Amino acid sequence: MTDAYARASSETGDALLLTPGPLTTSRAVKTAMLHDWGSRDAGFLAINQQVLQQLPDIINASDTHVTVPMQGSGTFAVEAMLTSLLPPAGKLLLIVNGAYGQRARRICEIAGRPHTVYATSEDTPPDVDEVDRLLRADPSISHVFAVQCETTSGILNPIAELAAVVEACGRRLLIDAMSAFGALPLDAKRTRFDAVAASSNKCIEGVPGLGFVICREPALAAAKGNATTLTLDLYDQWQSLRTTGQYRFTPPIHVIVAFHRALQEFWAEGGQAGRGARYGENCRVLVEGMAELGFRPLLAGPLQAPIIVTFHMPRHANFVFDSFYEKLKQRGYVIYPGKLTVADSFRIGCIGRLNAAHMEGVVAAVRAVMGELGVTLTGASAQP
Amino acid sequence: MTDAYARASSETGDALLLTPGPLTTSRAVKTAMLHDWGSRDAGFLAINQQVLQQLPDIINASDTHVTVPMQGSGTFAVEAMLTSLLPPAGKLLLIVNGAYGQRARRICEIAGRPHTVYATSEDTPPDVDEVDRLLRADPSISHVFAVQCETTSGILNPIAELAAVVEACGRRLLIDAMSAFGALPLDAKRTRFDAVAASSNKCIEGVPGLGFVICREPALAAAKGNATTLTLDLYDQWQSLRTTGQYRFTPPIHVIVAFHRALQEFWAEGGQAGRGARYGENCRVLVEGMAELGFRPLLAGPLQAPIIVTFHMPRHANFVFDSFYEKLKQRGYVIYPGKLTVADSFRIGCIGRLNAAHMEGVVAAVRAVMGELGVTLTGASAQP
Repeated sequence: MTDAYARASSETGDALLLTPGPLTTSRAVKTAMLHDWGSRDAGFLAINQQVLQQLPDIINASDTHVTVPMQGSGTFAVEAMLTSLLPPAGKLLLIVNGAYGQRARRICEIAGRPHTVYATSEDTPPDVDEVDRLLRADPSISHVFAVQCETTSGILNPIAELAAVVEACGRRLLIDAMSAFGALPLDAKRTRFDAVAASSNKCIEGVPGLGFVICREPALAAAKGNATTLTLDLYDQWQSLRTTGQYRFTPPIHVIVAFHRALQEFWAEGGQAGRGARYGENCRVLVEGMAELGFRPLLAGPLQAPIIVTFHMPRHANFVFDSFYEKLKQRGYVIYPGKLTVADSFRIGCIGRLNAAHMEGVVAAVRAVMGELGVTLTGASAQP
Repeated sequence: MTDAYARASSETGDALLLTPGPLTTSRAVKTAMLHDWGSRDAGFLAINQQVLQQLPDIINASDTHVTVPMQGSGTFAVEAMLTSLLPPAGKLLLIVNGAYGQRARRICEIAGRPHTVYATSEDTPPDVDEVDRLLRADPSISHVFAVQCETTSGILNPIAELAAVVEACGRRLLIDAMSAFGALPLDAKRTRFDAVAASSNKCIEGVPGLGFVICREPALAAAKGNATTLTLDLYDQWQSLRTTGQYRFTPPIHVIVAFHRALQEFWAEGGQAGRGARYGENCRVLVEGMAELGFRPLLAGPLQAPIIVTFHMPRHANFVFDSFYEKLKQRGYVIYPGKLTVADSFRIGCIGRLNAAHMEGVVAAVRAVMGELGVTLTGASAQP
């Protein structure tokens, strides 16, 4: 092994982002931002309309749901979804197994919205039977909130099964699909939900600055007056766009035009099936390669979504995460710190403009850095 | 006069935006977006820190105020300012003479925040003595909201005089400086205010996607728990940035990096004095040229801020605004519809990457389009 290596880089020469987003995007996505449009310009409004119309297609919802964009970020979209779609007399059951579920809980606390929490450990999916029991025991619960892929751990939650229970109990489901949308299957014809929130800078591979909520139209139409802010009011935002085609407040035009280009690349790759297959392969190469080096993932096979992988932090005197991180970054690979409360960990993402060769590159870089650090993982040091 | 003309265009070949923003920006500002960064990347965080530190310098507030950025747009920043800085026991006096004052009123209505309104006509600045009387008559008013330049009409409101009255009465001033910040003078050492809100895509000439509020630090420190949303909580946003250097939620990274570049160009032009001088010259060339063609501005000299000019819609059978707009757009000049309630009007902006030659080009294009439409304005048809 030698110290000489070629620094990995994206199409625009940047380090590869192995993170949960913002991600490495294509050169063409970024190049789409090299123009200026007025916010009332017909050309821009047509691009925006195409973006809004395409998003429900991805989850087979174009005849039942409409897209309401939300300036800001994914959390702005989640807060808009919760505070706009939960009526004043409603009550929310939050299904929590990570930081993003906790964030939704915090939103409800701050807004003073009635809610109750069903929490499991960060490495444990919710028990669907328990959700059924909770709903039957509390008829005042009108809505349920769940996270499709909890980025905290990378766990895949059983959204279809949860949706079936919520529907059977006559309640309404609100989904945070931030890091899953466009990569993991979600079909509005099989999985009933009132709304799903996501953002421009995850699996569609756009740049950050726009969230969106895909809403069942009657649920949105019933949401008038629910919101307690002007900017985060999904109903008001929808009304403006459907009646005038324009945003109420300045949209992030360049971000939206880049997102439009990202959607073209998404369809060219075969939509969700194609995108999901590439990420699945990225994940497989990563997990297998890291396993050979002695790293152990937090989650067992079917619980691991092909979005981001949490690895246990090795127990070895020479393994200092900050050095590990910096040395990988010098080689062009930016990984991500852990966010678990249950175990010391770090994360490596599988999403963005990355392919299997990039993931082989990550593994090779990890191998080289381990050599530099003088770390060899045995069963004892690799296991938590 | 001939139909042959060269279409005007920006450095990147786009039509020139003579609007209140989003604006024509430089090629270099947009080119800064051709890279990807992680949101926790040290390089990005340093760029972001430089942006936040430079903004108070523009209003001589670097030793008293701190910048809290807000993802979204200017209105997100205004709503964050009002709902974070007004305490539950507070009451706001809104000084209103246009749509942006009305928008602030709507924010207070939706949030259920106690407020009262002092409104004047869209072409009339507030009477400072009346504000003084209103404040003395109602000791429960804790805060005052005013708009520095109301983009509705383009009127310059007497911010320094208002601030003096608010200070003398022991109340606190919150300023919407959206379309003024960086172009019109505002000096924290002479004009006392608790906060001023603006955005990335106005006179600093960045791209849209980020608002910000420059806050007096003790006022911000006292704002804990005031907000009723997670995302729009200025206190919480500030705490995260000052303790970790990181955003709570994904920032619009490309927009912020472009804003950083726009600030470099701003300082290179001589800061507010240089930028304001260019816009002032743009405004003079526009108003004089349009006057020669028989167009009359809504506002008389000192009330007209050099940001955007409202012209009365001419009374002439052949003058159809939609045709006028489209023909100007074909020549590379995008103007803006009116927003007045008091008169039929249209607007032409003076801000963005435009100079006097561009404004002469606008006037020449208006002259040519008037010829095509067969419109000659006399005193009778030009006047409202």
